[in-house]
Formats: sequence, structure tokens, C-alpha cells
Amino acid sequence: AKRPTLQTVTLIPGDGIGPEISVAVMKIFEAAKVPIQWEERNVTAIQGPGGRWMIPPDCKESMDRTLIGLKGPLKTPIAAGHPSMNLLLRKTFDLYANVRPCVSIEGYKTPYTDVDLVTIRENTEGEYSGIEHIIVDGVVQSIKLITEDASRRIAEYAFEYARSNQRTSVTAVHKANIMRMSDGLFLRKCREVAENFKDIKFTEMYLDTVCLNMVQDPTQFDVLVMPNLYGDILSDLCAGLIGGLGVTPSGNIGANGVAIFESVHGTAPDIAGLDMANPTALLLSAVMMLRHMGMHDYGKKIETACFDTIRDKKVLTGDLGGKSKCSEFTEEICRRVRDMD
Amino acid sequence: AKRPTLQTVTLIPGDGIGPEISVAVMKIFEAAKVPIQWEERNVTAIQGPGGRWMIPPDCKESMDRTLIGLKGPLKTPIAAGHPSMNLLLRKTFDLYANVRPCVSIEGYKTPYTDVDLVTIRENTEGEYSGIEHIIVDGVVQSIKLITEDASRRIAEYAFEYARSNQRTSVTAVHKANIMRMSDGLFLRKCREVAENFKDIKFTEMYLDTVCLNMVQDPTQFDVLVMPNLYGDILSDLCAGLIGGLGVTPSGNIGANGVAIFESVHGTAPDIAGLDMANPTALLLSAVMMLRHMGMHDYGKKIETACFDTIRDKKVLTGDLGGKSKCSEFTEEICRRVRDMD
Ligand SMILES: CC(C)[C@H](C(=O)O)[C@@H](O)C(=O)O
Ligand SMILES: CC(C)[C@H](C(=O)O)[C@@H](O)C(=O)O
Repeated sequence: AKRPTLQTVTLIPGDGIGPEISVAVMKIFEAAKVPIQWEERNVTAIQGPGGRWMIPPDCKESMDRTLIGLKGPLKTPIAAGHPSMNLLLRKTFDLYANVRPCVSIEGYKTPYTDVDLVTIRENTEGEYSGIEHIIVDGVVQSIKLITEDASRRIAEYAFEYARSNQRTSVTAVHKANIMRMSDGLFLRKCREVAENFKDIKFTEMYLDTVCLNMVQDPTQFDVLVMPNLYGDILSDLCAGLIGGLGVTPSGNIGANGVAIFESVHGTAPDIAGLDMANPTALLLSAVMMLRHMGMHDYGKKIETACFDTIRDKKVLTGDLGGKSKCSEFTEEICRRVRDMD
Repeated sequence: AKRPTLQTVTLIPGDGIGPEISVAVMKIFEAAKVPIQWEERNVTAIQGPGGRWMIPPDCKESMDRTLIGLKGPLKTPIAAGHPSMNLLLRKTFDLYANVRPCVSIEGYKTPYTDVDLVTIRENTEGEYSGIEHIIVDGVVQSIKLITEDASRRIAEYAFEYARSNQRTSVTAVHKANIMRMSDGLFLRKCREVAENFKDIKFTEMYLDTVCLNMVQDPTQFDVLVMPNLYGDILSDLCAGLIGGLGVTPSGNIGANGVAIFESVHGTAPDIAGLDMANPTALLLSAVMMLRHMGMHDYGKKIETACFDTIRDKKVLTGDLGGKSKCSEFTEEICRRVRDMD
């Protein structure tokens, strides 16, 4: 399908620093003349018929129409029984793949260099099934649910991703030595799908071994695919290697092109409204979004301006080691974007 | 109970490089004149009545009597239905706490310095329950089992450990935001036990956050306590920070003083018998064992000789960056031990 000239994207600014980093991204997109219009929506959870928690209908309606969302951080609900909004969004739109590219940022020093890997996390089942019981007093069970369909779907996504992003290998991460049936099923599906992607090298590795190897030499990894909880852990671990959640983009991908891109850091209520936040994670998520939408040139331009600004070290927010305000950092990226014309 | 003057320890040399690193440890213990006699036992699993897998009776009998074991690596069984010997040992002797101190080794360079933490892993239940079902074709569930008793027991162990090892804080690692009932129960028990240890600082942290913070700055952690699978992951991750499984000791502790100390690296069949293996992990596990047995002075002496040898860099095995044989490395440690007299 040919895309309309001015495509609409649902913007969920989120809580805390969410609104100001969203403004930063919008300014940079404007400077780059990205042919996108934003449709802002809130996502405070509401209770529908029967007490079921749901995202507000106007947000749902917007996403159903635009198919693409960009989302800032949402505060964790404290009310008992109130679901995590992040989980509710994944569920509502069946965003089955969480994709996190972790690439070392030149000029931003961490103990590691040349990290360039992508974690692909199954986003809908596994340890996140939400099924738990009390067996008898003092004995509780949680159910990890693994299905053939979801396992095949995420394996296929990972291999397709590897192929279309010029990556050479996919590693399936598992504990099938312990959870022989569930992780065993996941692994079997990965192996089967691998058969159809002879151009991509396939390896399997225990989760504990991946963690050990990851902190010793992350450059040995390329694309990693894994069940839900393992992805939760590994994606954060890998973000840590390149500088943390403040600089790591994330995308949640569903079927038929629907996707929500998000910064996965917190809402940082202590600095909210003070023009001190770092918009990098949301901006790089927006760059992922542009690539997902096929707008590679705009994506490249903005990404380059962002990385150049960080490498240059002159205008950086506090968490990046500088003294500049969010608005100054944003303006510096805008300037560089404009200069590229 | 007063210990006999010459205490017996069950030695399970294990497979691959196991026998030669066991010899290395025995030589060093001899040089240090440690008042211990070894009772060697094999642990190839055998099938008892009804096909139940069990460890050989003479090994069981020895452990039941000595209460203390030192174990080299065991090869992973490949026969279907054959259990991991490591798991079988933990189960047979109800070794409920896996303890892994991770301390930076001077002279052995990794991206991190000053790491000094201990992971304490619940070793008997959780994701390792072994309970799995096929619900319908293509839908599998694994059961994570968390009990009040095992949670309290491991929490108590962690706090006792912290107190008696002059440590100041315990962090409970969990995903109670997702597994509200199971991890919730675990966390609640940690909180309750913390009440009885007002001298130890108690904190709680999500597993993903721990992983992220760990690779960014491991020095912020002290003692960490967690359910089985999280411990499997974190203990390997932390081993990676200080140089890998070749230099990381491990202890499995049960009730009434029973314990098995082990190197957790593999059997390295490619170099088995070639006098190339590094005995450090088994030696440091043996040092943990000495401390567990109250033989602190012997432990200190051997540990110092080992660390001095590594810092000195003149006699090192290949994996530590040297060119020496296992026997030469061992002899160097023996020499230093003797020189301390
Ligand atoms: C907020 C929380 C429910 C979530 C998770 O555990 O999946 C977060 O850690 C993430 O990775 O997006
Ligand atoms: C060998 C394997 C069963 C074991 C585990 O998963 O517990 C290992 O990784 C460990 O940490 O001791």
C-alpha cells in the first residue's frame, strides 16, 4: 500500500519528563521536515464493563487508525489490581515482538566498545501469562505459558529482521536444560524456522551462558531471540553495556504493521518540568519508527545529528556528562539537522 | 560439636579436567598441611528401583558421614530422561543455598575493578520444580513453585551470611511486578526476615534493573538474594565481571552443616589430561569450604598464595594469559604456601 504524503502518528507523551522529551522529538522532526503529523493521546487506564482495565477509547481508536505510535515513559500504577500500562498496550495491540538495538555510542564512554546487537523479545506470553495460584497456604505457583504459534511467530520475526537488516546471525536464548517442555518448544520452533533462513547463522545458548559471555565480550553477539522474561532481563543488561536506558531505543511490533516505539527509561519525576531531561532514548526510538515506516533518509539524518552532538560533547544534558538544558541539546540537534540540507 | 583432628571430606573429582584440578587442590592442601583427609567418590548416576535416578550409594553414604564435599565439573548427561548430576546432588542433600562470592582478582584484568559481592540463590524450587505439562497440542506450561518455607529459609541464610561475613546490605532480587503471587511471596518473606536483622540494610530491586545496574556499576552491590532461576543468571553474569567461571568459587549449603563446594566451569574435554587446566575455581571453592569448616587460617593462607601467584603474572595457565602448565601453576602456589610457614 502506498503511504499517504502526510502520515499520522499517535503520540503518547506519557508522564513525568514524557511531555518535554516529546516536545524535543517533535521539534527535531520539524527541523528535519519529516512528513508526519502527530495525534496526541493520553493513556491513563480506565475501567470498562465488568471492571476490566482498558486503555482509553480515543487512544485505541487513534492507534487502530494510524497503526504507529510513539510513546514516552508511563508511571507505574500503584493501585492494587491496576495493570502496568506498558503491558496493557502490548496486549491491546498484540505487539508480540520487542526489539531493542544496542549499539555503542561514539563519545559516550562505557566499559565496552563496538557493541552492536539486537535483542528480540517475545512480548505476549511466557512468564508474563499472569496466571498464578495459591496451591495451599504458603505454596504458590506461577505459570509460564509457551505456545507453538507465538514461538514460531517470534522466531520468524527475528530471522526476517536479521535478513532485512543485513545481520548475519541469530542466537536463540533458552533454559531448555531445565524447562525441557516449555523452553524446549520455543527452541524447537527456532530450529525449524532457522531451516528456512540458510543465509543466517543459527546458534543456541543457555541464558546463563549468554549473560556470562555478554559481559565478557558483547561483540560476539548479533541478533538474539528469546522468551518474554529472558528478554526483559537481557534487553536491560545490554542497554547497560552502551550507557543505560537514557540512550537505548525500543520498538514493540505487532502484526500488519502496527507498532509502538518507546523510551524505556522511567518518568524521572524529580526533574520533570525542569528542562533537564535527556530526549535521546525517545528520539532514537522515533528514528526506529521512521525506518519501520520506510522513511530511512529522515531516520539517518536525525540519527546522525544526534550521534554527532553526543560525540562532539559540547552540548550535552547532565546525565550525558554535560551541563546543557534539554532545550539546548534539542536545539543543537535541530541545528545540525538543518545544516545537512 | 568439636571437630575431629583429621576431618574427612568427600572428594568428587568429576569428569574431563576434574581429576587433574582435584590433584592440584590436594597437592596445595598438602603443602599447607591442612588437617583433612580425602575420601574419593564417583557420581555417575545410576537407576534405582522403579527407574528412579540416584547418585551411587557409596557416594551418598560418604557424604552422609562427612557432611562436606568438594566437587569438580561433571559432564552434562546426554541420555534423554537422565537428570543433571548437579541438580541431583542439590536435591539429594537438600542443598538449598547456592553461594557465589564474586571478588575482583588483582592482576587479572576485566572491564571492572573492586567488584566484591555475593549472590545467594535459592537452590531447590522456583523455575526448577521440574513440573511441566502439555495443555493442548502446541501449548505448554512450566510451573514455577515458590513456598513460604523455602523463601524464609533462603532469606534467613542470606541475612545470617551478611552478618557473619561483615557485610552491610542485602538486596532481594525479584519480578513481583509481574509474578505478583510467587515473587510476591518470596519478597514478603525477605521483608519479614529483614525485620530481625536491623543491623543489615535491606533493599529490593527488579531483576532487570539489577542486571542493568550490575553492568554499569557492580560496586553498588553487596549480598544479593533471589529465587532459583534469577540466581542461575545473576551468578553467571557476576562471574563474568571478575573473569569467568575459571576463577569463581561456589558453595551449595544445606541444613545441619552439610555442604558441597564446586567449580562451576565445564569439563573442558578438549584439554583434559594435557596438564593445561586452571585449578583456580576449584581451589577457591576449597577455600570457601575451609572457611565453612571453621579453618579460616588455612583458608587465608591458600587464598593469599593463589592471589599472589595470579598478581605476580609469572606462572599462569593459558586461560589466565600465561604459558605454564597446570602442574607448574600448582607448584608455584605450593611454594608460596610453604614460604609462609
Ligand atoms: C514495566 C515492566 C512491566 C516492564 C516489563 O517487565 O516487561 C519493563 O521492565 C519493560 O521491560 O518494558
Ligand atoms: C548445569 C545446570 C543444570 C545448572 C543450572 O542451571 O542450575 C548450572 O547452570 C548452574 O548454575 O549450576
